[in-house]
Amino acid sequence: MPRKPIRVCLAQIEVIPGDPVANTRKIISRMKTARQKHADIIVFPEMAVPGYLLGDEWERPAFLRECEACGEEIRQHSGNLITVFGNVGVDHSNRNEDGRVRKYNAAFIAHRGKFLPPRNGPLPFVAKTLMPNYREFDDSRHFYDLRKLAAESGIDAASLVTPVATPAGMLGCMLCEDAWHTDYTLSPAEILCAQGAQLLINLSASPFTAHKNNKRNRVFSALAHRTGLPLVYVNMTGVQDNCKTVYTFDGASCAYNGQGQISAELPAFRDQTRFIDIPRPPQQMPGRKPRPDPAPEKELYQAVQYGTARFIKRCGVKRVVIGISGGIDSALTAALYRQCLPPQNILLVNMPSRHNSKKTRDLARDLANNLGCLYTEAPINRSVKLTVGQLDGITAASLDGKHCRQLSFNAAALENIQARDRSSRVLAALSAAFGAVFTCNSNKTELTVGYTTLYGDLSGFLASLADLWKTEVYAVAQYMNDKVFRGEIIPQGSFDVMPSAELGPAQDITKGLGDPLIYPYHDCLFRSWVERWNRASPEDIIGWYAAGILEKEIGYDGSIGDIFKNPRTFIADLERWWNLYQGIGIAKRIQAPPVLAVKRRAFGFDHREAQLGPRYTTRYQDIKKQLL
Amino acid sequence: MPRKPIRVCLAQIEVIPGDPVANTRKIISRMKTARQKHADIIVFPEMAVPGYLLGDEWERPAFLRECEACGEEIRQHSGNLITVFGNVGVDHSNRNEDGRVRKYNAAFIAHRGKFLPPRNGPLPFVAKTLMPNYREFDDSRHFYDLRKLAAESGIDAASLVTPVATPAGMLGCMLCEDAWHTDYTLSPAEILCAQGAQLLINLSASPFTAHKNNKRNRVFSALAHRTGLPLVYVNMTGVQDNCKTVYTFDGASCAYNGQGQISAELPAFRDQTRFIDIPRPPQQMPGRKPRPDPAPEKELYQAVQYGTARFIKRCGVKRVVIGISGGIDSALTAALYRQCLPPQNILLVNMPSRHNSKKTRDLARDLANNLGCLYTEAPINRSVKLTVGQLDGITAASLDGKHCRQLSFNAAALENIQARDRSSRVLAALSAAFGAVFTCNSNKTELTVGYTTLYGDLSGFLASLADLWKTEVYAVAQYMNDKVFRGEIIPQGSFDVMPSAELGPAQDITKGLGDPLIYPYHDCLFRSWVERWNRASPEDIIGWYAAGILEKEIGYDGSIGDIFKNPRTFIADLERWWNLYQGIGIAKRIQAPPVLAVKRRAFGFDHREAQLGPRYTTRYQDIKKQLL
Repeated sequence: MPRKPIRVCLAQIEVIPGDPVANTRKIISRMKTARQKHADIIVFPEMAVPGYLLGDEWERPAFLRECEACGEEIRQHSGNLITVFGNVGVDHSNRNEDGRVRKYNAAFIAHRGKFLPPRNGPLPFVAKTLMPNYREFDDSRHFYDLRKLAAESGIDAASLVTPVATPAGMLGCMLCEDAWHTDYTLSPAEILCAQGAQLLINLSASPFTAHKNNKRNRVFSALAHRTGLPLVYVNMTGVQDNCKTVYTFDGASCAYNGQGQISAELPAFRDQTRFIDIPRPPQQMPGRKPRPDPAPEKELYQAVQYGTARFIKRCGVKRVVIGISGGIDSALTAALYRQCLPPQNILLVNMPSRHNSKKTRDLARDLANNLGCLYTEAPINRSVKLTVGQLDGITAASLDGKHCRQLSFNAAALENIQARDRSSRVLAALSAAFGAVFTCNSNKTELTVGYTTLYGDLSGFLASLADLWKTEVYAVAQYMNDKVFRGEIIPQGSFDVMPSAELGPAQDITKGLGDPLIYPYHDCLFRSWVERWNRASPEDIIGWYAAGILEKEIGYDGSIGDIFKNPRTFIADLERWWNLYQGIGIAKRIQAPPVLAVKRRAFGFDHREAQLGPRYTTRYQDIKKQLL
Repeated sequence: MPRKPIRVCLAQIEVIPGDPVANTRKIISRMKTARQKHADIIVFPEMAVPGYLLGDEWERPAFLRECEACGEEIRQHSGNLITVFGNVGVDHSNRNEDGRVRKYNAAFIAHRGKFLPPRNGPLPFVAKTLMPNYREFDDSRHFYDLRKLAAESGIDAASLVTPVATPAGMLGCMLCEDAWHTDYTLSPAEILCAQGAQLLINLSASPFTAHKNNKRNRVFSALAHRTGLPLVYVNMTGVQDNCKTVYTFDGASCAYNGQGQISAELPAFRDQTRFIDIPRPPQQMPGRKPRPDPAPEKELYQAVQYGTARFIKRCGVKRVVIGISGGIDSALTAALYRQCLPPQNILLVNMPSRHNSKKTRDLARDLANNLGCLYTEAPINRSVKLTVGQLDGITAASLDGKHCRQLSFNAAALENIQARDRSSRVLAALSAAFGAVFTCNSNKTELTVGYTTLYGDLSGFLASLADLWKTEVYAVAQYMNDKVFRGEIIPQGSFDVMPSAELGPAQDITKGLGDPLIYPYHDCLFRSWVERWNRASPEDIIGWYAAGILEKEIGYDGSIGDIFKNPRTFIADLERWWNLYQGIGIAKRIQAPPVLAVKRRAFGFDHREAQLGPRYTTRYQDIKKQLL
């Protein structure tokens, strides 16, 4: 006769970064619920006590002490519930390679007031074996890992990867990356299986990235299938940041049976727990195939909306001011905030200069009307005139009369004066008066090439859309009208109007003039520079162009030949934008607001840069010469 | 009879980050000189071909190909000169743990058109063994290391650390951190010695940090002494950045004899080569004790001046606009730029509002007079009045009339309006008209607690002083007057005047009102939060205060009791600044200009943060309760 199944509680909690006391309170409350429901095991996420993205907070001994005290408190509450939770593991008797106290990214297994150590392991907790060192991850900056420990002791790392014996069987505990082993030389899951693990557990602090859950299902499902063991994956929810980049954590925790099928799945972006019964032997555990990822625009909408809502909550933001131009970026931003805050806490401001068309001004008003938010118009004609009157044409001289220079504004200077007047003068002042912050409405296309004004439209407290290409902004806005509002809340005109900054006569939409970007093409081009795992350079682009495969390589579904009549215009366009991306674009990004990351390689801490200036390789120059 | 000495050329070159072609051109030209002077060996810095701080540029295959081609070119030019240089070593047949091609931070030894590999090593180059993972370093994000390679092959890392056999003897090559082994479990230098190395070579890309050369002399001298081998250290010069943080590389290359004495020393911050003859046996090599570090203010001045000068050169900045208030920060900034650019390329602007005293306005004018730069006054009274007239007291309402709110400015709002008007309106517009950028004059004290206005005085293209505490700003300014200008170029009044933002009646210096910071004390307090290797928290501070050892712990040479009459006022002050440092201060730093780093833990990439909000541990609360 089979034994009683093991009841596992997947505790997908929202973790507050840097607040171990609040997280511990929540952990203990979930333990209580689990006990009431007769769970044998409760599993919390990686770093459930301290949070995961904390910058260099790990360097504060007082913070480590607080985390350790919280871990002790959880241990004392464990009773007969096998409590698996992530915390920092501190080894006070040894040092990290930075000379500070040795720390591990650890899973603790508490039971009856004691920590159960891994079998034969030297540490009282399970230490992370594989350290992610790409994108936004900084694990090896702070944490020692099992592989270093093994090398130090002159033993094989695999010998330190051992399961934990518990009354519910041998648990094979892993931390996040340990299960994403493909590019590493050892696979902790398979070692744990060989060492007699009966249930695999993966504690994660895995930031949301579009399409990542699909990949995770493939990787984890294959792992469960290969080992023949059930696998429980518990990820956190919430929002955490590395200053320049804000990440959502989607949870989407999951259990797989030994055939690699999904036996339970928690919803994305919800603080929730779920109980599953794992039969013994576990072969009888029912399962189904993974669902495909949701439509891209749905997934992006969910992440952007959740990230914005949680971030403003965490920062204590109660009110926002949003500059709305009638265009799609500011309209989507306003629509998103309308899902996060009551209408009386949102102030929409249209700030026309003499270059703004009636059409877009009306669209801004329509949007304000549809959303029901506070609305005001603050024209900038007088203030711009004052600035021009005060400063244009003045003469600056050295007091000894030796040097003298007359100063005057060109067209670009006049455009930027307007943009800065709107943000740094009007929006910032209104925010102060409203007890609010103001938003940055920039998208990733603009941010890539710096087609935005510093201290102007590139200011604000958070850039919610800055990881979305312009074409994705349209798609998410359409999704909101179709599926969220189920009506034309974002005016159709904001979709249809030609995208334009409307800062001068060269951007007069009534004359058919607008942004210099051909978004469907440039979005694809810029994506290849930023988001490809092996990032493309002009050398690659020009090579693909010469070979006639550029469309395919960058995923553009039109024809390059329709846009550029000859290599000369193609190359001029390529160099124009590469120069901006690698030149002034970087300088602007340094001072940009935090970007809400929803995809691979958000600007900031994920896509790290240096002010190297635009460069072209020798091979690029050669191909260019051949083409011209 | 002793054999002919080995002539080594220390090629301390300025490296342009991201420009392998330019760096290679320079390398080959230095090789030519070395050959003319009959050198046996020439040593270039770590990463001399690509540069060191490149963000994620390493992810571009085209860039790697260019670096490899440059390495081949150097190899072909080697002739009978043993050429040791740093470059990225690419192993196309293997992968890094991020799935990209495997890369090493490598030293190549070229001779007679071939690369000489380490004895018994699996790679054609010397790979870095120890990877720094603290401060601004990101090595393990991009590079595989010998220890991982060893673990992968199931062998001991030490067995891969072997010298390179050359016609000039066995060279023990190391890369930077390899010689800073104290906190690691193996010491490459000692292994190389045991393996028969006759000369130790350390190729470095080591950013300047105040007092670091003193420490390096201690560490390297001890290493040479312990191994009994001469040690040649070659570091680069120049300036490189990680976007948020700009680093100077000071060179200060050095040769030590086998007794650990200095036998040659190159000047700091100069692109220079030096030839030394190492006798055989090397025991006869003369040497002397390391000189002590220069005075702190001299060292800081040199680094700030060099970093500013090289950074503007690299960015192609020809002209700057500097807002000068009469205070010390803007005065020092102007004085520094006067050392970098001709006076007609510097525009100094004083922007008084009705709150600025005649005293500071006169000081600004005196400074402009002393420096001989272009000067203008751009009062902001009218524009501030316009903003207040347009926006203060307006009513914003929803278009359906359901919600309505009157908006008005408080004192802080009125202060910030002035600060933004100065930078985002006046300085930005004048910069555009002058073909210039404008500077950020903030110091580290202000930046720590966000005592500065976003899009106001916290804007600009570079914050040259933002790694200096206010007291260090005074010291460097005094040093410039005393030793650089040898006269009162920075007006004495700017030293003597009470520091004040002069943005409102509460900061009226004529009434003895100024900044709320007690700089000598707060500089020490903030330093303990930011710059200590194990960073202090309020828990530590309050504990030290309770124990009566706070002055000693934070290095304050006054008495805390003279500032705070009782624990209540002490704690109120502590919490006020901690709340700002961990709250709005972080939000402001995210959008701050790049900081020129000159010490440990510059804000940005060295001191990494997250918007966690201010927190106080349980133990802090307990001590606080006891004190009150």
